Amino acid sequence: MNIGIPKGTRDFGPEELYKRRYIFNTIQKYFELYSYLPIETPSMENLDTLLGKYGDEGDQLLFKVLNNGDYLKKVPDNILSEKDSQKATSHLSKRGLRYDLTIPFARYAVMHRHEINLPFKRYQIQPVWRADRPQKGRYQEFYQCDADVIGSDSLQYEAECILLFDKVFAELGLEVDIRINNRKLLSALCQKVGAHDKLSGITTAIDKLDKIGLDGVRNILVKENLNDDQINTIEQYLKTGSLDEILQMLQEQEEGRQGVNEINKVFDFLQGTPLANKLTFDPTLARGLSYYTGAIIEVRSTQVSIGSIGGGGRYNNLTALFGGEELGGMGISFGAERIYDVMEELQLLDQTEMNAPVLILTLDDKYHAYGFEILQQLRAQGIRSDLYPAGAKMKKQMKYANSINAKYILILGPEEWEKKEIAIKNMVTGHQSNVDIHNAVRIILEKTEEEST
Amino acid sequence: MNIGIPKGTRDFGPEELYKRRYIFNTIQKYFELYSYLPIETPSMENLDTLLGKYGDEGDQLLFKVLNNGDYLKKVPDNILSEKDSQKATSHLSKRGLRYDLTIPFARYAVMHRHEINLPFKRYQIQPVWRADRPQKGRYQEFYQCDADVIGSDSLQYEAECILLFDKVFAELGLEVDIRINNRKLLSALCQKVGAHDKLSGITTAIDKLDKIGLDGVRNILVKENLNDDQINTIEQYLKTGSLDEILQMLQEQEEGRQGVNEINKVFDFLQGTPLANKLTFDPTLARGLSYYTGAIIEVRSTQVSIGSIGGGGRYNNLTALFGGEELGGMGISFGAERIYDVMEELQLLDQTEMNAPVLILTLDDKYHAYGFEILQQLRAQGIRSDLYPAGAKMKKQMKYANSINAKYILILGPEEWEKKEIAIKNMVTGHQSNVDIHNAVRIILEKTEEEST
Repeated sequence: MNIGIPKGTRDFGPEELYKRRYIFNTIQKYFELYSYLPIETPSMENLDTLLGKYGDEGDQLLFKVLNNGDYLKKVPDNILSEKDSQKATSHLSKRGLRYDLTIPFARYAVMHRHEINLPFKRYQIQPVWRADRPQKGRYQEFYQCDADVIGSDSLQYEAECILLFDKVFAELGLEVDIRINNRKLLSALCQKVGAHDKLSGITTAIDKLDKIGLDGVRNILVKENLNDDQINTIEQYLKTGSLDEILQMLQEQEEGRQGVNEINKVFDFLQGTPLANKLTFDPTLARGLSYYTGAIIEVRSTQVSIGSIGGGGRYNNLTALFGGEELGGMGISFGAERIYDVMEELQLLDQTEMNAPVLILTLDDKYHAYGFEILQQLRAQGIRSDLYPAGAKMKKQMKYANSINAKYILILGPEEWEKKEIAIKNMVTGHQSNVDIHNAVRIILEKTEEEST
Repeated sequence: MNIGIPKGTRDFGPEELYKRRYIFNTIQKYFELYSYLPIETPSMENLDTLLGKYGDEGDQLLFKVLNNGDYLKKVPDNILSEKDSQKATSHLSKRGLRYDLTIPFARYAVMHRHEINLPFKRYQIQPVWRADRPQKGRYQEFYQCDADVIGSDSLQYEAECILLFDKVFAELGLEVDIRINNRKLLSALCQKVGAHDKLSGITTAIDKLDKIGLDGVRNILVKENLNDDQINTIEQYLKTGSLDEILQMLQEQEEGRQGVNEINKVFDFLQGTPLANKLTFDPTLARGLSYYTGAIIEVRSTQVSIGSIGGGGRYNNLTALFGGEELGGMGISFGAERIYDVMEELQLLDQTEMNAPVLILTLDDKYHAYGFEILQQLRAQGIRSDLYPAGAKMKKQMKYANSINAKYILILGPEEWEKKEIAIKNMVTGHQSNVDIHNAVRIILEKTEEEST
């Protein structure tokens, strides 16, 4: 029998899931602390909502859901006879799986405009689906963890998002490098070289600097039909380090002055926090997404080379896509899947609380009912616990206790049953003693508290 | 612009989501306490895995995902020219959305057989998708909350699942009626009337007793070609109340004796717990799902009439579907969507902790940076808090504070700024005073602790 799951998707067993939860819960805790409110949107959106929002490649990578019922009926004959898949899609499918959390959020904000109060701070932790070719670290179903604030252009949110990144990664035990730039500087640079119509191409080229180096960027710019003067100016910009130098270079462009000013204001907000020294201004930071118009932020691990593990930026107007009033904002995203990979590589997830249970074993079936009684008493005390079914030899029960990483086992035999006692064994220390149920509970709970301090 | 979401799907705003989370978290807490382990399976399964597992109707109601790329190419010409949707599906789609959590779990158990230890107790809280006609309380995307134990036929798990239902519903504040029956009794009944080949039809008829009454059941049985004698015997069974009477009636059938014996054993396990008196044996309980072979359990609200809000049962062999070794088990499911509706109707969710924030307001822009400083100090203390952006009049800031249900507002003006103080106002009592940051934190945290006790 052919048994499996679609390529690019994953089963998560308990161990992996506890580790993933630890990451998600940490991110969520800080989203909550920073007063972001949770929302959830449906896995399926109308295809209208999704198409045309992620570029041509994105449209191709959307998972489309086949209409139910006699779906071929509505497809024009000639499309079928020509086997024109591209034209057929709109007749065969009216729903698609969520591709990211940003477009659904924009759609949400427009649809629920009367229910939300501006500035509206929302977070969303849900899976998204992309029909990308599966490869190591790239999946067709994966989680995104986004926080956005819309309806305010205050730069306090840039500062807040940077602090949020810092706090979350610190709590996860990861050392990170947080960089900031501003799309207005890139826009001003393009104006300065008289190629503002090529902003998107130039941004894309600069975004690849990390991977392809300065020569690679030059090659792309040549292909974009930029001349040597233009390319030299761009190269000069890319080699510039400080905000003062950038200001000097771009002071004649209004967006240049604005960009520098905005970055300075973000640093002002961070005065008095450790971020004032940890945050790096990086004029070469470009970010891939097209809708950013102001600050852009990127976070990388300094311990594992894997690309960005967080990022975000400010956008002017996301809701206009859905005919809503103009609502700009600032949003960030945690790359949870990569964060997981980094933490695994650094063995930071090995100690994740698996909430190990207490297991009750019985030397003979006749003590099994007594075991069930004890079990209820443990659970009433909030102790995660279980009782091995009757009818098994002690060896088998012990093997099971080990396999589920039981932290204590309670053994019930004739002596225990008679004295209403329990033989309790600490599976870490190996220490074993006979106690009554109250003392067993006390021992287990003390151990648990000790662990959590 | 046409803006909306697919029918039968829902957006969840913050308020609704906190309420839903409260329900999910409560269920999850008890799943964990009872030593069930979490797993997650992909939203998309291979269609092979799903088709034929839920009956013809289920096959129709599966959401199928269109293959990517030039998907029409692989469909035979005649299928397209005949517009034969049914035949086309296997060529157009190889993936479908999860329809329930049970089949994916069976698939998981077979695929990961070497990683799991028997008895394997897993829980799973994830959305499922069904192309059902949307109506009040019925959605195309909804959550299921399942716990199953496979690899043991011990009746301790029947007792455990009943206790689990009882604990969760008690914690949610719901009064419920928990009933138990055993499919073996229904099987024995069919044998007794010489119609074991009609077990499925008879079970389905009995399952409808609640809705259509005894006469309705009789009508269905007539249509199943049962004669008067047979129907009278079935009616006699349905009117019987006690286990003793049932045993007397079915003692000649081995499954009759077994079924009664099993139910008695479950009650034995529950001796000494309040469930010994609360659990009801109900010979008319049938449950819809076809794979149950032993105990069946159903939970209903005694306060709101809405159908079952929880249920489950024992099955012989779920994994054989995927060619695995025979692994029987016992599973239950919480009807989270209905539980939500019941709790809303009883206004039990009105007090759900919305984790109300503290909001900092500034009388003038020049105190805004001071506000940002205060904000970091509040967050460092774990206080969910926010700062209204600069540039707004006090009236607007106050309106926002009310709209987000701020529990405290901290107002910063010239006097506060000079004295390094804060005007703190309790939004519930209206009480306002000027204090320093340490006392503000103390007041807020004391209030929070007071609330949680």
